[in-house]
Amino acid sequence: MARRSGRRPGNQDTRESILEAARAGFAEKGYDKASIRGIAGDAGVDPALVHHYFGTKEKLFLAVMNAPINPAELVPQALSGPREQAGERLVRMVLGVWDSPAGAGALAVFRSVLSNEWTARLLRDFVVTQVLRRAVRELSLDPAEADMRSALVATQIAGTIMARYVLKLEPLASASVDTLAAAIGPNVQRFLTEPMPEVFKTE
Amino acid sequence: MARRSGRRPGNQDTRESILEAARAGFAEKGYDKASIRGIAGDAGVDPALVHHYFGTKEKLFLAVMNAPINPAELVPQALSGPREQAGERLVRMVLGVWDSPAGAGALAVFRSVLSNEWTARLLRDFVVTQVLRRAVRELSLDPAEADMRSALVATQIAGTIMARYVLKLEPLASASVDTLAAAIGPNVQRFLTEPMPEVFKTE
Repeated sequence: MARRSGRRPGNQDTRESILEAARAGFAEKGYDKASIRGIAGDAGVDPALVHHYFGTKEKLFLAVMNAPINPAELVPQALSGPREQAGERLVRMVLGVWDSPAGAGALAVFRSVLSNEWTARLLRDFVVTQVLRRAVRELSLDPAEADMRSALVATQIAGTIMARYVLKLEPLASASVDTLAAAIGPNVQRFLTEPMPEVFKTE
Repeated sequence: MARRSGRRPGNQDTRESILEAARAGFAEKGYDKASIRGIAGDAGVDPALVHHYFGTKEKLFLAVMNAPINPAELVPQALSGPREQAGERLVRMVLGVWDSPAGAGALAVFRSVLSNEWTARLLRDFVVTQVLRRAVRELSLDPAEADMRSALVATQIAGTIMARYVLKLEPLASASVDTLAAAIGPNVQRFLTEPMPEVFKTE
């Protein structure tokens, strides 16, 4: 089997065929239903080779998206800890990533979601099945409310990224992480854990 | 002077030259500093002709952006009325526009902001100088806080549009306007008018 240290053109080609098959497989079936086995079959390689190059299905997906970070690890990490500050911690984590050297790559993924229908669908699938499942577990949210609460949190997080890093709206774009955590954290907290009877009675 | 009812190819050409000059003028100078006179000069026409075709500078800008609505009129309208429900009214107004037949055009502007640096800069200028000035007047916000409050509102509004109309995140994408007004309105209200001492002391 090809070794990672080989660096022969053939390896690069194999890696690319797997990525291509994965891109098509995820696009066609969605994150949850696509399988390493199916993707390997489409690429004409052994599933073990896919694992060898990319590790888990999650990591293969992140490679397809060119994602510099793994939200399925970072989001649950941010949510663990005292429940009352989960919103603030989530805001700090997001700003920490986008302010870091990984931010440029993360912003590229963010922009591609907005210009490409299937990237949007795929990221949505991944966020819903991977990120949210773990977030729900971390915060023990009411399952009847978890999806709406998560989607509401997504509005505030996506909008913060857009205003600070895409629109560069001042004074928000230059504000410190502390200031934005104090400003936005409580709103995320309300979406995450506070009672919203008027929202959940009507659905 | 060419008449609106003329519909000769020449008129269409004049209209297009004005739009082209306006696009370049707004891009170069920003919304506030670009002038009808300067744009007319660049297009080689009389300023009166620009007014004839497009009306005000604001309307010329909206034509350049292909904007189906005028946020500088709609936002202050939504904010006028009882102060305590301004956030909810703003959410209802935004959803009303994007759920309407004008929504497709509004979404196209939204997407172009995300893929095009100068569209982002231009819309930001317009929102800051035209929409916010009137919003501040409407709500009598503290001038020292007005820009940050407006930018925070923008995060929640932009994120809502993104989650509902671009990502189509469920159950938010199919939720009723009433449900979303109850869910998101109070968060917008906090950004607009509620005391946030921990935010404004640190800047």
